[in-house]
Amino acid sequence: MTKEEISKGFQELQNAICTRLEEVDGVSKFQEDNWSRPDGGGGKTRIIKGNGVIEKGGVNFSEVHGPVTDLMRQNTEISADSFFATGVSIVLHPHNPHIPIIHMNVRYFELSDGKYWFGGGIDLTPHYVISNQATQFHKGLKEICDRYNTTFYLKFKKWADDYFFIPHRNETRGVGGIFFDHLSENPELTKFDIFNFCVDLGMAFPELYKYQVEQGKDLSFSEDEIDWRNTRRGRYVEFNLVNDRGTKFGLVSGGRTESILMSLPATAQWEYCKEIKPSSPEESTLNLLKKGINWIQC
Amino acid sequence: MTKEEISKGFQELQNAICTRLEEVDGVSKFQEDNWSRPDGGGGKTRIIKGNGVIEKGGVNFSEVHGPVTDLMRQNTEISADSFFATGVSIVLHPHNPHIPIIHMNVRYFELSDGKYWFGGGIDLTPHYVISNQATQFHKGLKEICDRYNTTFYLKFKKWADDYFFIPHRNETRGVGGIFFDHLSENPELTKFDIFNFCVDLGMAFPELYKYQVEQGKDLSFSEDEIDWRNTRRGRYVEFNLVNDRGTKFGLVSGGRTESILMSLPATAQWEYCKEIKPSSPEESTLNLLKKGINWIQC
Repeated sequence: MTKEEISKGFQELQNAICTRLEEVDGVSKFQEDNWSRPDGGGGKTRIIKGNGVIEKGGVNFSEVHGPVTDLMRQNTEISADSFFATGVSIVLHPHNPHIPIIHMNVRYFELSDGKYWFGGGIDLTPHYVISNQATQFHKGLKEICDRYNTTFYLKFKKWADDYFFIPHRNETRGVGGIFFDHLSENPELTKFDIFNFCVDLGMAFPELYKYQVEQGKDLSFSEDEIDWRNTRRGRYVEFNLVNDRGTKFGLVSGGRTESILMSLPATAQWEYCKEIKPSSPEESTLNLLKKGINWIQC
Repeated sequence: MTKEEISKGFQELQNAICTRLEEVDGVSKFQEDNWSRPDGGGGKTRIIKGNGVIEKGGVNFSEVHGPVTDLMRQNTEISADSFFATGVSIVLHPHNPHIPIIHMNVRYFELSDGKYWFGGGIDLTPHYVISNQATQFHKGLKEICDRYNTTFYLKFKKWADDYFFIPHRNETRGVGGIFFDHLSENPELTKFDIFNFCVDLGMAFPELYKYQVEQGKDLSFSEDEIDWRNTRRGRYVEFNLVNDRGTKFGLVSGGRTESILMSLPATAQWEYCKEIKPSSPEESTLNLLKKGINWIQC
């Protein structure tokens, strides 16, 4: 599989996901911005906003290439001169506090010396954690993982717990999902298999989200629940700006700021030492923002 | 001057500033949280919020000590075993978009081998930049600097331009101010002089802010102006979480999260590629968020 085929596959994935997400949203359509990168390549950033399910969301495709930078060498041992990277990255922020925030990313990285790897992740950030919805989400991810390798789910689920974690809050970002990196062909999987794993995750993404949306979208919500949603969005901002290696790498390496920060919510809030009522849904949510919860008892 | 005297001086500074800021606010009173640090020391975090001038603000005093951590050694060459640090740190977010956000910090750091230094800074972040208000602010800072050393203002003003800068936006945080670090006694200034410089800055702070408040507080504002205020607050969040070395060091070194992040606004917002009308006050503001503007023609 060539990098051009993978890039084309990811573009088609972006198209398929956007079409399906417009159906899930029910009202708004994606607007596309085409951009090019001064040092090579470019992307298509698609933004959805309005009065449907999604208040603000983005589905970003990029294909960039150029000389390997010092910053890239800092993160991984790289001796090659130039790189090629392509991927699809998504964050959706719904209006209704009873619908979770969701994120997905699949990416492919190739060096001029022939080395390559895939990476990616999907994770769910409910404003209010509902256990059986988290279970459904994890079951869906396990089903896809199991098609490719029965060790993937547990390994990638733990990786997500560790990655989507906010040390300064001692909280996970949400109920996790899966995260993987540096995945390349091995005795059990061909390059094509790994590409298909990424595509399967991408295609499952809107379906997994549709289920979450359906559970919450007809529930009414109060001012206090909006307030809590905005506080949880504040934590999302903290994770993305303080802890997310992808965001930091993108910003420092001269990526397109508006495409990277499309992950931030329309609004967020911070209240000093916000009070949490005992035995409230808010307290119950905080108690479930922990690493190592076995959502599907496997 | 002993570290205990400096710490006591900074506590008195906190008291004096809070008293004066309550007058500037006109309605709300500070609430104090006393906290202690597991590894040594503690602090007093004072928060003001309500319907006066200030929507959300904090004046934090801390005095912490303990073993030098690896993280501290990363930032500065340190051979000593233990450290002592005390300081006052302030951020105020007003309701009215025509009043600027303001920040101030003075700090003292001492090592068990006797080495010590002072650091600090004051900077102003108007939602709408008004040149003559920026000039007044800088004039006030220069006046204090000049009492101690006539080279300070230009040196520390440039340092602030470089420090309070958001590379991924290619914008300064606001109209700058002064920033300094690693200041210790020298042929021209005693330790007591430098302490007094910090106290003078601290005492001038509410007076400088009072002037800014008076220029804006009776101006009415529209929904669009609130929208712009919240967008500028979003940039403030970006600077603090992505670029501010003090915030990052505090969070990573296990500082008290709620005291560190009291600097974040009550609300913030992010809009993808927000449109700026040509020749608008918003565009004029963006054009003034640059390094190297000589606000007082010196």
